[in-house]
Amino acid sequence: MNQALPESAITHDSDFIIFGGSGDLSIRKIFPALFWRFLNGQITHNFRLISCMRNVLTKKEFADKLRPFCEEALKSQFANAASWESFLELIQILELDIINEIGADNLYNTLRPKLSKERPCVFYLAVAPKLFGTSCLLLKKNKLVLPQSRVVVEKPFGHDKKSALALNQEILNVFDEGQIYRIDHYLGKETVQNLMALRFANVIFESQWNNRYIEHVQITTAETVGVEQRASYYDSYGALRDMVQNHMLQLLCLVAMEPPSRFNADQVRNEKLRVLQALRKIEDDEIQIGQYENYTQELNAQSNTETYVAMRVNIDNWRWAGVPFYIRTGKKLGLRASEIVITFKNRPHDIFSEQGENANDEFPNRLVIRVQPHEGLRLHLTSKKPGPGGMRLFPSELNLSFDETFAERLPDAYERLLMDIARGNQTLFMRSDEVLAAWDYIDPVIEKVRKKSPEIYSADSMGPEDKILIKEGRYWFDPILEQKE
Amino acid sequence: MNQALPESAITHDSDFIIFGGSGDLSIRKIFPALFWRFLNGQITHNFRLISCMRNVLTKKEFADKLRPFCEEALKSQFANAASWESFLELIQILELDIINEIGADNLYNTLRPKLSKERPCVFYLAVAPKLFGTSCLLLKKNKLVLPQSRVVVEKPFGHDKKSALALNQEILNVFDEGQIYRIDHYLGKETVQNLMALRFANVIFESQWNNRYIEHVQITTAETVGVEQRASYYDSYGALRDMVQNHMLQLLCLVAMEPPSRFNADQVRNEKLRVLQALRKIEDDEIQIGQYENYTQELNAQSNTETYVAMRVNIDNWRWAGVPFYIRTGKKLGLRASEIVITFKNRPHDIFSEQGENANDEFPNRLVIRVQPHEGLRLHLTSKKPGPGGMRLFPSELNLSFDETFAERLPDAYERLLMDIARGNQTLFMRSDEVLAAWDYIDPVIEKVRKKSPEIYSADSMGPEDKILIKEGRYWFDPILEQKE
Repeated sequence: MNQALPESAITHDSDFIIFGGSGDLSIRKIFPALFWRFLNGQITHNFRLISCMRNVLTKKEFADKLRPFCEEALKSQFANAASWESFLELIQILELDIINEIGADNLYNTLRPKLSKERPCVFYLAVAPKLFGTSCLLLKKNKLVLPQSRVVVEKPFGHDKKSALALNQEILNVFDEGQIYRIDHYLGKETVQNLMALRFANVIFESQWNNRYIEHVQITTAETVGVEQRASYYDSYGALRDMVQNHMLQLLCLVAMEPPSRFNADQVRNEKLRVLQALRKIEDDEIQIGQYENYTQELNAQSNTETYVAMRVNIDNWRWAGVPFYIRTGKKLGLRASEIVITFKNRPHDIFSEQGENANDEFPNRLVIRVQPHEGLRLHLTSKKPGPGGMRLFPSELNLSFDETFAERLPDAYERLLMDIARGNQTLFMRSDEVLAAWDYIDPVIEKVRKKSPEIYSADSMGPEDKILIKEGRYWFDPILEQKE
Repeated sequence: MNQALPESAITHDSDFIIFGGSGDLSIRKIFPALFWRFLNGQITHNFRLISCMRNVLTKKEFADKLRPFCEEALKSQFANAASWESFLELIQILELDIINEIGADNLYNTLRPKLSKERPCVFYLAVAPKLFGTSCLLLKKNKLVLPQSRVVVEKPFGHDKKSALALNQEILNVFDEGQIYRIDHYLGKETVQNLMALRFANVIFESQWNNRYIEHVQITTAETVGVEQRASYYDSYGALRDMVQNHMLQLLCLVAMEPPSRFNADQVRNEKLRVLQALRKIEDDEIQIGQYENYTQELNAQSNTETYVAMRVNIDNWRWAGVPFYIRTGKKLGLRASEIVITFKNRPHDIFSEQGENANDEFPNRLVIRVQPHEGLRLHLTSKKPGPGGMRLFPSELNLSFDETFAERLPDAYERLLMDIARGNQTLFMRSDEVLAAWDYIDPVIEKVRKKSPEIYSADSMGPEDKILIKEGRYWFDPILEQKE
């Protein structure tokens, strides 16, 4: 049972070729997202989904491995008895050893019959970054770098600017920038998308979106999980590289960017780049790092790697001069949520100051954009407390909860991003110069942090006690989760 | 069972003396409001409530007449078995013939033992306006015009400026302006109060509350009732005098006024006065009048009296130059609701214009303030339509419903106003100069209208077809009522 698709959602028949097709990313994210898009009719029977792997699985083994991650979709109204089998029919499993180039000719022969300029050919490199260059060369050697080809890579895009440049070059040696899709899945989230609509389709917010009206901005991405199986990988990166350089700075860019002339890939990314280029070098007292207790036990080694970062980010331009952006992210925190809080300046003059109980009350307006979970918007207002007895003020809220408002299921970020790739829309993907500009900012931050020891914080806390905001008389707003979480 | 009262709601022990104490206003509005305030503990056993009437009722007759209008209060959590009897104990019934001055000495003797500067003495003239002057003189003769005395009158405050001046003078011959409480019960409504908090406690709205950001304003007060028993009274007034000169212009003033320095009676009323003084003389094509079908049958006479008015009101000042305020009110309309709609200007540039389906979509931001029923706020926004397929925009809403948000019952306008009188707070009452300035504006409007024949409209419609907004490419936003109404 397919939904009626809006015209703009219709996608040309495409081929998706997943390198690392039996890996975690493929099984947990990519194929389940493709299945949802199949159930919603956006992926038709004319698509080909080719899962490449070194140690080849049978179709049955692959299906058994994938199925647990498709259960939610299978239980939905869109699935029927035949859905799963029909989806599996689209999938071909090919042996591919990237390093030893085993199976590359077979891949070409499989694709060849349907290769055409009108048929997007998406190569998703769900493999370690060290294999990006080799993978690209393999595609080139096998005549698969065609005008209709697109290549998809995931973070980490290097571990500093130098390595990012090298990694970029390996891909750019083979593909044009216009064919490269660097995924930051945060950009595919519904609320992040909605932030663009909120800002640029609503005069009421954009007209106040500057240092005249905004007092400060907070961006929090809190995770409850620790590093778990990724301990040794994570330890060589840390929160700054794993979360701040990409997700957090991307969210910051979307909040801070100037309105682009058009909502297209180049103009949106130009504006984000300008924000990154306007970031001021961080000072010692503008960053705080933490490590959750028992991290070194999990890692089974000594380490100063940060699992928590809080920063005061300053944007040196006319719009944001004097408005701090506080960002923080951490693992093993007391809650899992990602939230952007815009605090507006308080009223310039209080006409109610003589109204008894209000004398000391101050409730500045705040706009809270919940990225996850329970995506939605809240606008904090000051209202009159109902009842007789003069003008007593109290804080109230205007609410827009996306998951309560929309009967439709909100698609996962990967679903949106995969379809954008098929449609050739790069707006939500990071351009090379953005990645490098983010490293330009982060490299000196990491340099600074390497001289510090992280503060140890207990699991289920909200990280080390704040030392940044408090100096300016501010404090972190912790996301308030509804009961259902 | 009393609620805990906020400090600012505590009221000194007072005397309420109601002239016309067995009339409609007393029985339907004043005494039920006093009963609620008694149940909530704001009126204590030390208050005296004196109901004056020409044809005196026994306490039992009075109680029987009043009780049907107190049923809701009696069913509430605040009432118990003894509440009704305790309330009745506060009430004294006195014979008073205002014209023939019968009973005035008895009123004085009744009040005398407790007369004191600290004990407010409220004379509520719930009688015809032609008795206002006589009533005041009677109070003066009987030494009841004291510093602690306050006099309360209701509209109509004249039927034009000349008669309003005369009426005012009759009262001002006896009382100071600071002792006179002219009730417009619309000003006591919770949402109207909240409009002040919304504007002056929330930078996010007030910073855009001007002609740079606001496109136009609409104020609708729609009634479903006709003139009924009031036909002959109403026919000599019409909608312009009955609704526009007072309620509608007062709502307009609260939307349009500059922020006062302090939220006190004089400063708030100064600012409202400035709005009234800035109103531009109306043009022929800026007003439309209607009369509901069968009105003349109900009246049993020919009549050109308007039961519906729609107007384009222009405010000649820096804040509002170029922003029309459209106001309309009518009887026997298709719904009963009072609503203020602020429409913001649309975005200056549409970055989404190339996003397929959005090309022709325009959803300007709107703030809807529902005065009644179901008091609340709605902010109309433009959001991204969830799901894959580019940036499709659609209108969404942020909501704050007062009656859903607050477990507490919202007090009736009369309850608030009565307690404000006891506390000597004139903020929500019309000052003499305001009343006269409103007539200054309305007199020429009535003059103009008298030359027109009203358009006949069918009951349950929204009045005659619009001829004012349509010229400017706008249209009326009809209040959308929830199912429960």
